[in-house]
Amino acid sequence: MATILRRETCVRGVSRRAAVCGGSIIQRRTFSLQELDEKRGTRERVVILGSGWGGFGLARQLDLRHYQPLIITPRTYFVFTPLLASTAVGTLEFRQAMEHSRSRPGIEVIRAWAEQIDLSKKTVTVEGAVQSKDKVGSVIGDGKQFEVGWDKAVVAVGAFSQTFGVEGVKDHAFFLKDVADARAIRRRILECFEEAALPTASEARKKQLLHFAVVGGGPTGIEFSAELHDLLSDDLTKLYPSLAKYHRITVYDVAPRILSMFDTSLAKYAEKVFSRQKISIKTSHHVHKVNSEAVHTREDGEVLVGCVVWSTGLAPNPFLAKALKGKLQMDERGSKIVVDDHLRASSMDERGSTSWPLDDVFAIGDCASLGGQELPATAQVANQQAIWLGKTLNKAAVRKAAEGKPGPVKVQDEKKFRFRSLGIMAYLGGWRAITQSGSAELKGRMAWVLWRTAYLTKSVSWRNRILIPTLWFTNWVMGRDINRF
Amino acid sequence: MATILRRETCVRGVSRRAAVCGGSIIQRRTFSLQELDEKRGTRERVVILGSGWGGFGLARQLDLRHYQPLIITPRTYFVFTPLLASTAVGTLEFRQAMEHSRSRPGIEVIRAWAEQIDLSKKTVTVEGAVQSKDKVGSVIGDGKQFEVGWDKAVVAVGAFSQTFGVEGVKDHAFFLKDVADARAIRRRILECFEEAALPTASEARKKQLLHFAVVGGGPTGIEFSAELHDLLSDDLTKLYPSLAKYHRITVYDVAPRILSMFDTSLAKYAEKVFSRQKISIKTSHHVHKVNSEAVHTREDGEVLVGCVVWSTGLAPNPFLAKALKGKLQMDERGSKIVVDDHLRASSMDERGSTSWPLDDVFAIGDCASLGGQELPATAQVANQQAIWLGKTLNKAAVRKAAEGKPGPVKVQDEKKFRFRSLGIMAYLGGWRAITQSGSAELKGRMAWVLWRTAYLTKSVSWRNRILIPTLWFTNWVMGRDINRF
Repeated sequence: MATILRRETCVRGVSRRAAVCGGSIIQRRTFSLQELDEKRGTRERVVILGSGWGGFGLARQLDLRHYQPLIITPRTYFVFTPLLASTAVGTLEFRQAMEHSRSRPGIEVIRAWAEQIDLSKKTVTVEGAVQSKDKVGSVIGDGKQFEVGWDKAVVAVGAFSQTFGVEGVKDHAFFLKDVADARAIRRRILECFEEAALPTASEARKKQLLHFAVVGGGPTGIEFSAELHDLLSDDLTKLYPSLAKYHRITVYDVAPRILSMFDTSLAKYAEKVFSRQKISIKTSHHVHKVNSEAVHTREDGEVLVGCVVWSTGLAPNPFLAKALKGKLQMDERGSKIVVDDHLRASSMDERGSTSWPLDDVFAIGDCASLGGQELPATAQVANQQAIWLGKTLNKAAVRKAAEGKPGPVKVQDEKKFRFRSLGIMAYLGGWRAITQSGSAELKGRMAWVLWRTAYLTKSVSWRNRILIPTLWFTNWVMGRDINRF
Repeated sequence: MATILRRETCVRGVSRRAAVCGGSIIQRRTFSLQELDEKRGTRERVVILGSGWGGFGLARQLDLRHYQPLIITPRTYFVFTPLLASTAVGTLEFRQAMEHSRSRPGIEVIRAWAEQIDLSKKTVTVEGAVQSKDKVGSVIGDGKQFEVGWDKAVVAVGAFSQTFGVEGVKDHAFFLKDVADARAIRRRILECFEEAALPTASEARKKQLLHFAVVGGGPTGIEFSAELHDLLSDDLTKLYPSLAKYHRITVYDVAPRILSMFDTSLAKYAEKVFSRQKISIKTSHHVHKVNSEAVHTREDGEVLVGCVVWSTGLAPNPFLAKALKGKLQMDERGSKIVVDDHLRASSMDERGSTSWPLDDVFAIGDCASLGGQELPATAQVANQQAIWLGKTLNKAAVRKAAEGKPGPVKVQDEKKFRFRSLGIMAYLGGWRAITQSGSAELKGRMAWVLWRTAYLTKSVSWRNRILIPTLWFTNWVMGRDINRF
């Protein structure tokens, strides 16, 4: 059950302790960024913290004649997050939802955890990230810290899964933020079926194992439930015919309705589709505890389940509190970096009473808050911000060169960032979806076609534009491939 | 570094201890094979131990009108072993080398470890197999034993990796027997590159991390080296251009030449291709120790490496000694079940002095020894035995029905099994291969075409016949996809 979240909060704790004990010292002599410095030439170095929709998107956008993009990330691949639910149930391969950060020539990558940032020296202190030998899939620090200089710094570290402090979630529920999560979910679903198929499994045990709970009625939870429903009814029913009568899905949400970002009519349609598919929706239900066997809600008490998938929104990345507090202006809850309409972060005086925008520090994606506007924490927003920032930096560099100005590139004279919603969509299972864009709404089969097309055209690599339809086709003809791995 | 081998010897040890402590008792009341018994009707039940080339191949062959195939296996998928080396380096997805044992309707599967077999009661005692919660990918016993009755029993449990007792192999080397092994190798290769790419990595450390050692110069070791060479030179050189000068591959073998099953001229050709690809071949080298940092040979002493892949042949499956010793006739070393030319195992009197063939117990694949003949321990042999046994059982059932004889089906009057070698082949990297069939030899590009065609036409599922060429094509055009997972 490795997830990004636990990896950060628990495993990172270990390396922090090591640092305190003196195990982690800044390496001043034994390392060299000489090669990076040579390649850089006279270009500005843009250090990007994070390799998600924001960080990887920006790196791809930057003009290599003007900038040296340098991604600092403990995770060397980009995850096409909207496809994670599909990979968790085997509709797609895991690798179809990934792209290697080093796959684009000219984008430099250091696999490391960012630890501190120095705004006056213009450096970031990082610690090399290596695979844990004890926990498969976990990435820990290697105890060797070093400094990397930057001309521009972009914070794109994203957010973590929100648990609201509910007991047992971190240890017993599955998140859906990373490929490791999707893999763990797939493995658990198949394990539930295999255990239920043993002749020694009692009726009660079968019912428990094949009851899948999803906590959170947002798009992620709903799409996962829909994909899981397809897997159960299309495929696993064929492999385990005698278990078909046992499996069921329940979606829990604390709110009175699911899909609150959609219009009521679309959410109602979703509820209708789900009810026809025999997915229970338990709105206004409060989960207060999760353990290895059950979900506990205030309304229903203990409900035995085989697997709990948890998707109740985002929590701030602890990097913000650790490295940026008191240096950059944060929102009131201290969970996001406030940026202006050029996506610039702001410095503060010591008392935090006045602040002014920095020309060389930016924040994008889930960890940024665009002053005054409440943008959704979605891939769409992060992607648009990444593209805007990349293009704007490119334009500003050209303008500076044309005008022959000295000093670093500045974006303040460029056009402001404006988010243009392309609409929202959610898959509902059984080849049905809902989409909503401004006042235009679509539901059912046509919305599903739109949903697939959108994911396909947004899929970053050409490889995946070939493989994803091939997999969709073979799945359609022959069913999903749901081996253990 | 989970492998089938360690899973068996270590993890199984845990459940055996649990059994001794009373944690494992035969479940007599709480379980029911009623459903299986109902489905069986008047057919004979063929219990097959194992789901590899032998077991899964036989189950697919049996005529469902006459037999109920029931596979007992802790691993619910079939592995297309010749493609494992390709999956380890990312040429193919893991799932293209797998097929779910339950994918064929009518084939029954119980995921369990076979513990004992009773020849007079015609039962096999098994223990339910579940995923370990501690070790990802490991399968352990669930402590619940139960008995399954059979009309025919087929032992197709295969063999384990041979280590010759060399110190450290089980803990520090990677085998290439299962998909979990291939995944662990892929992860380790990428990890070596990522660690070497850190600015803190010294010259010596880079050289060590990117030195890949392969122990064993048989087809598996050679094909893996060849695939690894392709990955390093085609793909990783592009992703990590500054590391290109560091990586190298060394193949160790204790014998004076590699590929001893091939004619000398082909083996010489292989050595020439390897030397052109800068793969070192160290024949007549004796590895006596492996640890997390190095391979130790008698000739060269300690050689620092990033990863050791171990492929030095097969060792007997411990199930034979545990469950069959003294019951079935074994070969002199006690490592294989002796079968006659109808693949029937033999019973023995108490002193083991005389033996007679059993009409209802068979052994096929790597755990069987065809009296008098030394067949290679390959997928080809296991596959041919599985097909022969399936077809022969089908024919014998038809004959028995036609003749109206009472009693169980007997194969003794059917044609004998005869192995027909279809030739052997090995991939050498750089689109070159060698094939040898009788006196016909082929090497180079044409042999490579034959090699790919053979794997493709033998690939069991239609899904994979579509996906494998698609992956080959996208890899060819766009390079391998070598994300971490």
